[in-house]
Amino acid sequence: MDIATIVGILSAFALVITAIMLGGQLILFFDVPSLMIVFGGTLGATLINYPLPDVLKVFRVVKNAFFHKGQTVQGLIGNFVTLAGVARREGILALETNINDMRDEFMKKGLQLSVDGLEPNSIREILGTEILSIQDRHKLGSEIFTTLGTFAQALGMIGTLIGLVQMLKTMEDPSTIGPSMAVALLTTFYGAILANLFCLPVAGKLKTRSNEEVMMKELMTEGIIAIAKGDNPRIIEQKLNAYLPLQLRESNFR
Amino acid sequence: MDIATIVGILSAFALVITAIMLGGQLILFFDVPSLMIVFGGTLGATLINYPLPDVLKVFRVVKNAFFHKGQTVQGLIGNFVTLAGVARREGILALETNINDMRDEFMKKGLQLSVDGLEPNSIREILGTEILSIQDRHKLGSEIFTTLGTFAQALGMIGTLIGLVQMLKTMEDPSTIGPSMAVALLTTFYGAILANLFCLPVAGKLKTRSNEEVMMKELMTEGIIAIAKGDNPRIIEQKLNAYLPLQLRESNFR
Amino acid sequence: MDIATIVGILSAFALVITAIMLGGQLILFFDVPSLMIVFGGTLGATLINYPLPDVLKVFRVVKNAFFHKGQTVQGLIGNFVTLAGVARREGILALETNINDMRDEFMKKGLQLSVDGLEPNSIREILGTEILSIQDRHKLGSEIFTTLGTFAQALGMIGTLIGLVQMLKTMEDPSTIGPSMAVALLTTFYGAILANLFCLPVAGKLKTRSNEEVMMKELMTEGIIAIAKGDNPRIIEQKLNAYLPLQLRESNFR
Amino acid sequence: MDIATIVGILSAFALVITAIMLGGQLILFFDVPSLMIVFGGTLGATLINYPLPDVLKVFRVVKNAFFHKGQTVQGLIGNFVTLAGVARREGILALETNINDMRDEFMKKGLQLSVDGLEPNSIREILGTEILSIQDRHKLGSEIFTTLGTFAQALGMIGTLIGLVQMLKTMEDPSTIGPSMAVALLTTFYGAILANLFCLPVAGKLKTRSNEEVMMKELMTEGIIAIAKGDNPRIIEQKLNAYLPLQLRESNFR
Amino acid sequence: MDIATIVGILSAFALVITAIMLGGQLILFFDVPSLMIVFGGTLGATLINYPLPDVLKVFRVVKNAFFHKGQTVQGLIGNFVTLAGVARREGILALETNINDMRDEFMKKGLQLSVDGLEPNSIREILGTEILSIQDRHKLGSEIFTTLGTFAQALGMIGTLIGLVQMLKTMEDPSTIGPSMAVALLTTFYGAILANLFCLPVAGKLKTRSNEEVMMKELMTEGIIAIAKGDNPRIIEQKLNAYLPLQLRESNFR
Repeated sequence: MDIATIVGILSAFALVITAIMLGGQLILFFDVPSLMIVFGGTLGATLINYPLPDVLKVFRVVKNAFFHKGQTVQGLIGNFVTLAGVARREGILALETNINDMRDEFMKKGLQLSVDGLEPNSIREILGTEILSIQDRHKLGSEIFTTLGTFAQALGMIGTLIGLVQMLKTMEDPSTIGPSMAVALLTTFYGAILANLFCLPVAGKLKTRSNEEVMMKELMTEGIIAIAKGDNPRIIEQKLNAYLPLQLRESNFR
Repeated sequence: MDIATIVGILSAFALVITAIMLGGQLILFFDVPSLMIVFGGTLGATLINYPLPDVLKVFRVVKNAFFHKGQTVQGLIGNFVTLAGVARREGILALETNINDMRDEFMKKGLQLSVDGLEPNSIREILGTEILSIQDRHKLGSEIFTTLGTFAQALGMIGTLIGLVQMLKTMEDPSTIGPSMAVALLTTFYGAILANLFCLPVAGKLKTRSNEEVMMKELMTEGIIAIAKGDNPRIIEQKLNAYLPLQLRESNFR
Repeated sequence: MDIATIVGILSAFALVITAIMLGGQLILFFDVPSLMIVFGGTLGATLINYPLPDVLKVFRVVKNAFFHKGQTVQGLIGNFVTLAGVARREGILALETNINDMRDEFMKKGLQLSVDGLEPNSIREILGTEILSIQDRHKLGSEIFTTLGTFAQALGMIGTLIGLVQMLKTMEDPSTIGPSMAVALLTTFYGAILANLFCLPVAGKLKTRSNEEVMMKELMTEGIIAIAKGDNPRIIEQKLNAYLPLQLRESNFR
Repeated sequence: MDIATIVGILSAFALVITAIMLGGQLILFFDVPSLMIVFGGTLGATLINYPLPDVLKVFRVVKNAFFHKGQTVQGLIGNFVTLAGVARREGILALETNINDMRDEFMKKGLQLSVDGLEPNSIREILGTEILSIQDRHKLGSEIFTTLGTFAQALGMIGTLIGLVQMLKTMEDPSTIGPSMAVALLTTFYGAILANLFCLPVAGKLKTRSNEEVMMKELMTEGIIAIAKGDNPRIIEQKLNAYLPLQLRESNFR
Repeated sequence: MDIATIVGILSAFALVITAIMLGGQLILFFDVPSLMIVFGGTLGATLINYPLPDVLKVFRVVKNAFFHKGQTVQGLIGNFVTLAGVARREGILALETNINDMRDEFMKKGLQLSVDGLEPNSIREILGTEILSIQDRHKLGSEIFTTLGTFAQALGMIGTLIGLVQMLKTMEDPSTIGPSMAVALLTTFYGAILANLFCLPVAGKLKTRSNEEVMMKELMTEGIIAIAKGDNPRIIEQKLNAYLPLQLRESNFR
């Protein structure tokens, strides 16, 4: 559960709405054709830009921006120290039982390859390809949201141009100029809100989440290779601790 | 057949036209000299920017954004497992018959090289060069559409500047100011529509298609190399599965 | 203590305030709902964009832009020459006592690894990972400030759009147009000030500080590896001096 | 002779001029001080930005955007197959006579090095440095045109600001406002035309030409190395064909 | 002495001033508070962005954009051919006397390392680090000018916003609107001039100078390594000539 995403969206929208209501009625900012152009047009442009399955997948991906339960790096390092100890004392085959208890598929696959006796370089190659394709898939989610944000702002401008042209062409009663122009500006407003208070920051959160996950997978790769090589648990701890800031490091020795 | 591209273009244009008609007549948004400046000028600038054969090639490339029939990754991995099995049981020369049945030229070339007994490193080198030049050719299509989109917006602004200068120089009857300015804004509108509802998203789709194809070719390279090396079919499956998200992986081994 | 940051902020704000007061009253530039939209909205968008712990960490990081006490490169090179001399004369184990007197954790860790007899390549690998993760953590601070600056400008524009729509919709008394529009522009003004006189330059300072620290750590890595390899102190000095501009180089060898 | 560049420039300018004449007199768009600011200022800024010899060299380079006679890739591959055949049958020294007939200096130098008996790695190193410095020189031409385009737009805006300030300061007769503002906008118009219908697309064409030439040189390097290694002509053809799209490949072997 | 920089600055400013005087009085474009905001604010933001010593160093660096006396590449290559001849005939120790006559510190250091008998790989490593840190220091100068240019434009906009708010809040006498708005626009004008006719092109010149110097240093490294390896002077000439365009190459061997 990512509190920050929800708090951020709720507080940003609450602030904008409060600010609007301090200066006038909220209903002035509601216009159906403008909403249609911005939301529909943005979705249309995005469908041209990405294959349908990728756009649909985004709805599954966006929940990563709201819900997220991660394993701590410290816990993971502790696990590796334990596993390395077992492998050293009882041989690498003894890890087979530990593998069955794990939930992370990447970890299971990597350790299984070690137990199967693949040489470290092949393990690194297979896990490296896996990390690269995880990265590609994650990048897509973040990219689609950035694209949505960019098109939302462009469609907002297109809507305002439509409104301005209509207003200028039929400019007879000067008293209608103000309200017509206000409506024309609403699409730019919708586009800016959609982009800056939803699409772009969600793209940013997805990118951060992806970086975190890739860092965890790289740490796992280092640990798995070290176990396959039969490294000393203490050296493994030191290698893996390098991924952590100093104040968060814990040692299982002394 | 890429449904998303067609649905995207149709729905985006339908929405914009509906929104225009809710606020006035569609004919107000039609002006021949403005269309001339934006469409002709954009094409002119693009012809300066790219060699003629490249621009002509784009018309062949753009259909990739609309029509696309891809092989599934799972099917391809299955193929490799079968081929590796044949090569292991009957020797790599036995693949000669399988090669004749294939349609993908890249796959045929790569396997032929293996059957010819080239060493894995040379195969990787040749196929790598091939992937790089496929990428270069694809990037060009996406790049030309991005350029078209950028110039469309610039020409839109140039057209609006022309209209504004003409209006301001001959400003006698105040009642004509509005309509003249509306016409001046039309070029910006055309440029924004052309860029954001056609050129830029098509550029994006071409880039996505290119990434997909390159990923397939890289997977093929891995598979071909693995067969040339005489790898175990099970290891090959594991290596190639790394390109797939977990939930889409299938195993041919119980 | 980074004088430049404080002098920069104080002088920039003093100049802006002086310039405002030369042209009118300062109070004209103060509007609570506008401040709410820009500051609150920017913070909200940033909370959507980054995980909560990262945003909180920024407050610890920002002090690096104001306070900074660095070791000089020359002093560090001198240290290495001394350490290399000790290691050469008395053996690398003799460095153990020197390690206890050091304050820099990176230096301590690296030398401890040399004393423990790890081979140079492993030391480089461990210290390299450490530098990479220091870099990642630093980049985050600078990135969050850049994001704050970008959203501040976007929220400024959103606030101005809100003000313009409200003004245009209720345009009855022409004498209120000017002041209403002035208030609408204030959010853009706040966004521009927040971005350009605080967030973006602080992001720049954090990036510079990070580059400096990484350069120091790389120099330390080179020095530690050279000691582990048993290099001649004079060669070490020459290698490390390459990080310094000519006019700042000092030699410990006449 | 690059038809596209000339057709592009002529058609784009013809369209803009036609569009202007449909709406008024062409003379309205002609103003000497505005031309002075945009053209002179852009040139001035570019002279600050680049050393004089580089700016002068651009005039020699720009003709590459208009005239271009290239060797076809297919012909080049055919040449290499022939040369490899000669080298195989009669020894590499037999190529000496072929070298004298060549016009391309890069090709001559590379083959001469092979005939001189340099080992393939040294040849690759020398030719690689050559390609890198060709690339650097080409990039400069494209870069200078991009810079010209950027400054043209900036100077256009500076000119408009000058015009606006002058108009606003001396605003007595309302009937002069329109024409004065029209003149002020002309510099922005000139800047946009200069940038978007000349500088930026020419920069693009130079970049495309450079990529093509570098690709040819890389293909030549591959071929020369292969001959120096004594590769089989058929393998050479296959290696070099990888640079071509499938439909353009020709084989010299049935 | 870099004529282009001085000619560029003088001609650009002369043109802008001439253009202003053709349309009105120069004094209209002079306003002290506007100058204060743009120049002072830009400097303030830059001081926040960079450490004080880096900003001060810029004044030493900027003279590189105006004064520059370079060694020609051809001369340098000739030097290396001579040195390689000496080293071949009389042994590498014979270069000691030549080193004392040189002025370039990089050249001296590199040759001294060869004479001291360091192996080529160590020499390359030391000189490589040296080039990297020269590059870092040069990049900083160019970067600070780019930052100055960016902040100048932002402060210009902030100043205009201040002027607009003050004008709109106190809009009583319509006849003062024009002149007030003219003054408000002056800051944008100052920012655009400072950025586009000074900061950004100087940043560009510094970058070009840095690239030239790095290219010279890379050529020197190649030459020094080749001498240390005892390469044939003719091969050295051929290797180093690759850095030059064909028409500028000279040979010391008939």
